[in-house]
Amino acid sequence: MKDLFYNYIENLQDSITSKLEEIDGSASFKEDIWKRPEGGGGRTRVIENGAVFEKGGVNISGVHGKLPASMQAYFKVGDVDFFACGLSLVLHPKNPMAPTVHANWRYFEMYNEQGDIIDQWFGGGQDLTPYYLFEDDAIHFHEICKNACDAHNPDFYTTYKERCDDYFHNSHRNEARGIGGLFFDYCKSTDSMSMEQWFDFVTEVGDSFLEAYVPILEKRIHLPYTPEERTWQEIRRGRYVEFNLVHDKGTLFGLKTNGRIESILMSLPPHVQWVYDHHPKPNSREEQLMRVLKAPKNWV
Amino acid sequence: MKDLFYNYIENLQDSITSKLEEIDGSASFKEDIWKRPEGGGGRTRVIENGAVFEKGGVNISGVHGKLPASMQAYFKVGDVDFFACGLSLVLHPKNPMAPTVHANWRYFEMYNEQGDIIDQWFGGGQDLTPYYLFEDDAIHFHEICKNACDAHNPDFYTTYKERCDDYFHNSHRNEARGIGGLFFDYCKSTDSMSMEQWFDFVTEVGDSFLEAYVPILEKRIHLPYTPEERTWQEIRRGRYVEFNLVHDKGTLFGLKTNGRIESILMSLPPHVQWVYDHHPKPNSREEQLMRVLKAPKNWV
Repeated sequence: MKDLFYNYIENLQDSITSKLEEIDGSASFKEDIWKRPEGGGGRTRVIENGAVFEKGGVNISGVHGKLPASMQAYFKVGDVDFFACGLSLVLHPKNPMAPTVHANWRYFEMYNEQGDIIDQWFGGGQDLTPYYLFEDDAIHFHEICKNACDAHNPDFYTTYKERCDDYFHNSHRNEARGIGGLFFDYCKSTDSMSMEQWFDFVTEVGDSFLEAYVPILEKRIHLPYTPEERTWQEIRRGRYVEFNLVHDKGTLFGLKTNGRIESILMSLPPHVQWVYDHHPKPNSREEQLMRVLKAPKNWV
Repeated sequence: MKDLFYNYIENLQDSITSKLEEIDGSASFKEDIWKRPEGGGGRTRVIENGAVFEKGGVNISGVHGKLPASMQAYFKVGDVDFFACGLSLVLHPKNPMAPTVHANWRYFEMYNEQGDIIDQWFGGGQDLTPYYLFEDDAIHFHEICKNACDAHNPDFYTTYKERCDDYFHNSHRNEARGIGGLFFDYCKSTDSMSMEQWFDFVTEVGDSFLEAYVPILEKRIHLPYTPEERTWQEIRRGRYVEFNLVHDKGTLFGLKTNGRIESILMSLPPHVQWVYDHHPKPNSREEQLMRVLKAPKNWV
C-alpha cells in the first residue's frame, strides 16, 4: 500500500503542477529534492511571482524511521517505527477575486519490532479560502467534493464537510478560515471499508482536485480589482497565517519535530498585512464574506 | 502594591506615548478603552501610518477574577482568584534602518479564599529587533539595560540578558528574533530582595525604555533606504510573526484564554512577506545581521 500510494502522489504532483504551469503561462515550478537525516525525504515544488500565482507549493514527501518522541505521546504508542507520505498543496493567486486553495492527501503506517504493520490509515481533504464570495464558486467546489464522496459512501460528504468546518476554524477570531470542503483523518480498515477501498476513496478525492479548483480560477483570474480589494486580500491572508501558525496541527507538528521548515512554511502567503481592529463597511462585499465565515453554510 | 504598580504603568503609558507622538510628528495614538467581562479591562493605544511609526501599540491592562482553568494548570494551583496588570509595547518603524522594539512590565497576584495574597511577582523586559545591524545601536541599548540592572544587583544584567536570548529564539529557524536586551519573570520576595525592591528594579527598567530606544530612532529614521532593503525588512518581520504566533507564551496565553484579540495582536507588523527559501547574499549587510542572530553576542 505504501508503494502504491507514494506512486500515486508522485504522479498526482506531476499532473497538478503541469496543469497549473499551463494556467499561469508565465512562471514555472522550482523543484527542491531534500533528504531527511533520519530517513526519507521529499520533492518540493514552489511557484512564485507568476501571472496567476503569486505564490504556491505542491509538495510530496515520504519519511520513515523511529517515531519521534512527541509523536509517540500524540499517538499513545511506544518506541515504534513509522512510515508517512503525502502530497500537500497551497496556492495563493495574485487576483483577490480568485480564492486560495489548500489540499492534502496522506498515508501513515506503524510497525512492531518484527516489521509487521500494527496500524495504518489515510487522511486528507481540500478546502477553499476566498477573499470575495462568489456563491457559484462555493457551490461548484462543494459539488465536486460531494461527487467524489458519494461514489464511496452516501454519508461521507456530510461528515467530512462538517469536520472541515470544525477544523479550519480560527477559534481566537470566532470565524472560519474559508468556506470549507472536505477533511478526513484516521481512515482505517473496518468491516465495511478495506484499506483498498479507502485508497480508492482518497485517490478519487485527489483526482477531483483540478476539476474542483481550475474552473473557479479560470472564471476569476481575469476580473479587474482595486488597490482596496488587494488590501482586503492581504488582511485576510493574515488570518490564514494566524490559523496555520496557531492552530494547524500539521504545521506545528512539523515545526516541533525538525521537519523541513521551508517546505512546511511554503503555505504562508507572499504579501500580508495586519491592520489594527479592521472591520469591513456595513453591507460591503467584504462584510458579505465575513457573514459566511461567521456561520458556515451548506452549499449543496 | 497592585495600586502602586498600576498607577506607575498608567503614567508610563502617558509619558511613552507623548514622547513617541512628538518623534513621529504626523500620526497620533488612537485610544481604545475596553472592559473584560470577567473583571478588569485595559487602555489600548495604537499608532498607524505615521511618518516614523508604520504601526505600534502601547497598551496597559489590569484584569482580575477567577484564575482561568488553563492558567491554574500552568501555575499548578487550584481554583484561586488573581490580579494581573502590565504595560506591553511593540513599535514597528517604517524605515528598515530603524529597529522594531518590544517591552513589557507586569505584576501578578493570587489570593486564597479569604482574599489574602498567596503569591505575587513581577516580570518583564525589553528587547530590540533590527533589520540592519548598527553595532553602536546594539551597544547603546544593552548599556542602558545594564545600567538599569547594575543599580540593583551586579548579576542581574548577565542573568536577564541570557534569559532574553533564550526566550526570544525562533527554535524552528535556529535563530534569535533580534539582538536581545532583558527578560525576567517570577521576581518574588526573597531574603535579599523585597517586593518593594523588585518594584524599584522593574520601574527603573521601565523608566529606562525611552533612553534606550529614542536615541537609536533619532539616528536611523532619516537614513535613506532602497526597495530591496524594505523587502528584507518585510521578510524579517515574517520571522517576528512566526515567533509571536508559534512560541510567545504571552500571545498564545491571550489567544487561548479569550483575551482582547486586537490588543494582543497589535504586536504583529503592518506589511509582511514570506518568500520561499530566502537567503541573503554572501557578505551582504543582510547576512551580517543573520550571523549575529545565529550566535548571540555580548554587547557590553
